[in-house]
Amino acid sequence: MPSETLGLYTDFYELSMAQGYFLAGKKDEKTVFDYFYRTNPFEGGFLVFAGLADLLNSLSAFRYSDENLKYLKSQGLKDSFLEYLKDFSFKGTIYSVMEGEIVFPSEPILRVEGNIIEAQLIETLLLNILNFQSLIATKAFRIKLVCGEKEFADFGLRRAHGTGGMMASRATIIGGASSTSNVQAGFFYNIPISGTMAHSWVQSFDDELTAFREYARFNPEGTVLLVDTYDTLRSGHPNAIIVAKEMEADGNKLIGIRLDSGDLAYLSKKARKMLNNVGLEYVKIFASNQLNEYVVNSLNEQHAPLDGYGIGTELVTGKPDAALDGVYKLALCNDLPRMKISENVEKMTYPGRKSLYRYFDSDGNFFRDGILLENEDPDVCECIFNPILPDKCTTVSGLTKENLHTKVYENQSITNPLPAPQECHEYLMARAALLPAEHKRFIMPHIYKVGSSKALLDLRDQLRKKIGSKSI
Amino acid sequence: MPSETLGLYTDFYELSMAQGYFLAGKKDEKTVFDYFYRTNPFEGGFLVFAGLADLLNSLSAFRYSDENLKYLKSQGLKDSFLEYLKDFSFKGTIYSVMEGEIVFPSEPILRVEGNIIEAQLIETLLLNILNFQSLIATKAFRIKLVCGEKEFADFGLRRAHGTGGMMASRATIIGGASSTSNVQAGFFYNIPISGTMAHSWVQSFDDELTAFREYARFNPEGTVLLVDTYDTLRSGHPNAIIVAKEMEADGNKLIGIRLDSGDLAYLSKKARKMLNNVGLEYVKIFASNQLNEYVVNSLNEQHAPLDGYGIGTELVTGKPDAALDGVYKLALCNDLPRMKISENVEKMTYPGRKSLYRYFDSDGNFFRDGILLENEDPDVCECIFNPILPDKCTTVSGLTKENLHTKVYENQSITNPLPAPQECHEYLMARAALLPAEHKRFIMPHIYKVGSSKALLDLRDQLRKKIGSKSI
Repeated sequence: MPSETLGLYTDFYELSMAQGYFLAGKKDEKTVFDYFYRTNPFEGGFLVFAGLADLLNSLSAFRYSDENLKYLKSQGLKDSFLEYLKDFSFKGTIYSVMEGEIVFPSEPILRVEGNIIEAQLIETLLLNILNFQSLIATKAFRIKLVCGEKEFADFGLRRAHGTGGMMASRATIIGGASSTSNVQAGFFYNIPISGTMAHSWVQSFDDELTAFREYARFNPEGTVLLVDTYDTLRSGHPNAIIVAKEMEADGNKLIGIRLDSGDLAYLSKKARKMLNNVGLEYVKIFASNQLNEYVVNSLNEQHAPLDGYGIGTELVTGKPDAALDGVYKLALCNDLPRMKISENVEKMTYPGRKSLYRYFDSDGNFFRDGILLENEDPDVCECIFNPILPDKCTTVSGLTKENLHTKVYENQSITNPLPAPQECHEYLMARAALLPAEHKRFIMPHIYKVGSSKALLDLRDQLRKKIGSKSI
Repeated sequence: MPSETLGLYTDFYELSMAQGYFLAGKKDEKTVFDYFYRTNPFEGGFLVFAGLADLLNSLSAFRYSDENLKYLKSQGLKDSFLEYLKDFSFKGTIYSVMEGEIVFPSEPILRVEGNIIEAQLIETLLLNILNFQSLIATKAFRIKLVCGEKEFADFGLRRAHGTGGMMASRATIIGGASSTSNVQAGFFYNIPISGTMAHSWVQSFDDELTAFREYARFNPEGTVLLVDTYDTLRSGHPNAIIVAKEMEADGNKLIGIRLDSGDLAYLSKKARKMLNNVGLEYVKIFASNQLNEYVVNSLNEQHAPLDGYGIGTELVTGKPDAALDGVYKLALCNDLPRMKISENVEKMTYPGRKSLYRYFDSDGNFFRDGILLENEDPDVCECIFNPILPDKCTTVSGLTKENLHTKVYENQSITNPLPAPQECHEYLMARAALLPAEHKRFIMPHIYKVGSSKALLDLRDQLRKKIGSKSI
């Protein structure tokens, strides 16, 4: 993150409203904002929450330099408010689910408590980081689901959205990529990097065999030969076999070949046979070229003898969704619960300070999630209600439960050490093992039920009536 | 761009290959690489080229610090090569079309000339910036095409791909957005910013009318009221009218209202009537909420009385494509033309150092583009040939033509002052006026013809034969 101008990493209306709160004498009003999303990405059954560490690491740098203030003055902000911004820093408190947690629509994934100005000003930054990294971690995990034990590497930087490629690579590791091609992401986030050769390497030599030999000569322990520059079956494979045999003679082993065009099922079967025929069973076959979870699944179904994948564009852009619809909504201000009603029922929000509980069935699997008011005793909450049809409810008394929120930021500090992306992935895998398979399938997944306590529903209904009576 | 680690803004295989070139004694071999793309985004008929200024500005910072080199050593790169990288900088030459130019598939949009190491190492950075900004500028221009004289603002930062939101906002201005909500982009790129209020402003007051009054009180000349927090027709519109009349009494004018949910055609017609009934014809109606070029077009067709749009997610993510398939391919190395054949015919590349010419018809409109060898005399090139079916050709002798390439970078410097995003947009509008309408329509646009000279086709065919004979 560009720390020297982080306070400007915001929509202008956040500043415009913040100035309004300041001028209206509301600057010390206490607020609670919730981060949640409405629709699972990729027509799937869940979201992998990611981006928390980057968000928390950037909060302490969210300030306004003199140069920033000069710019804001040129944009019409008033001197008294700019004076306030001079000493501004975010001093609020944040509660959140863990990074790598599996979450569902409408859940308060993260809760920000602070004065109305600080909680408002960080909105855009928070949404920008969490929406994007959660989208990509989810995409990566979907690919992991079909790859199983096979590894896949993130190859996406060239098609990523500018410098957003850094966060993309981080999120792919949380979701399940084993490494990234992105060197800067490796450097910043301490995640594994990988990569060998492109077509330009092969083209730059006068013939393919020389290109392969030269690469192997300088990388005796790390050679993967790209075999489709000219003609995969008639040139790439035979030349790779020659070089593999020459490497054997020198006591080395070719790691693998990579296919990057053509029919990957057909070509990988041909390649496997050609390699096995000459005793090169150990040489792996990797594939790349416009892969996604559906293509990998199809290759599996065809028993394509592939050992790993390089996945770029769709992985780091979250295609075709390209965005997660996460929002950040005011739930409490000046000690009063707040909600938005809107023209669309599904855009109605939950008022008040809330907790998020997960209930487990007798096998220890995820069963239901429940949104409770934070001051409710969860042991007293016996039923979780459908928020739209409140006559539908599920008894949860006696079930094992977990409060998914922990305090992650307070007093301008991160409260606990943040897990590395690889650790977030391990946590994800442990949680995913508890999510029944029907929620993980790609086609029409079973909807995981999220409900709310009676007390929360009652608060929402009271508030709707109150707003309704006032607003006509 | 994070200038202190820009040399790491690359795929690892670029470094792995660069080390190989170095160790193989190829480091001083002269190369030419082309940037081009294969498929028009959004099933459209063209691409708006963007990102050039950011690319050129970052090239001079593409270096390796001691800390970077230490990291690369930890990743297995060899000391002799790291020693070379210590003094590395990009000293190559770049030719390019202008930013904001309208271009087409397979055209060499930009040409990099340099030694093989420098030209290889910048590949990922170049693709990352140009692919993304061109995608977004194109999306923005498609929206501009349907907006006509109406303005639209970029509201997308919260759904943008992390810090990639900066380049996204820049590119939206090139394509036609009149302003952005993104304050940091305004600061860095000197582009207009805008924004007024979100639902949280309204919710934070005990009633909507007070919220509207307070905003107007502190922004007498810049108030746009968001009217859908509770109930657009029964609360939002009536309250906005009350405040507009109060503002009139104080000698001010409400700029407008904004609709952010519900049916925008229906609600805008209702709002227009309610406003006009009380003499508020001057109050504008803006709309937002999941807009794209198709929704705006539909609103136009329904004669929705909207005066402007805020467009976020789809604009800054280039949804549903999410990426442009631009590539960077070796065309010349060590004085010999090079090409890639691949398993897919459409992935075959053009060898050699090439120019790009645009031919105009007698009305001055774009007629054909032609790819020529750089050492060809364009006045002698009489015909442009279809590259797949070379018996199809078009006579271009006598037509007005333009060489679209200019030298933009040389001797570690930008050769000419770079136009601002707004200037790029003006250039785009001038060029778009010369592009016949059938290439601009959204549904099955007419394909703009791009061909190549006889000399280039002959070179490609000779080279194919030569590679073919060697590679079996």
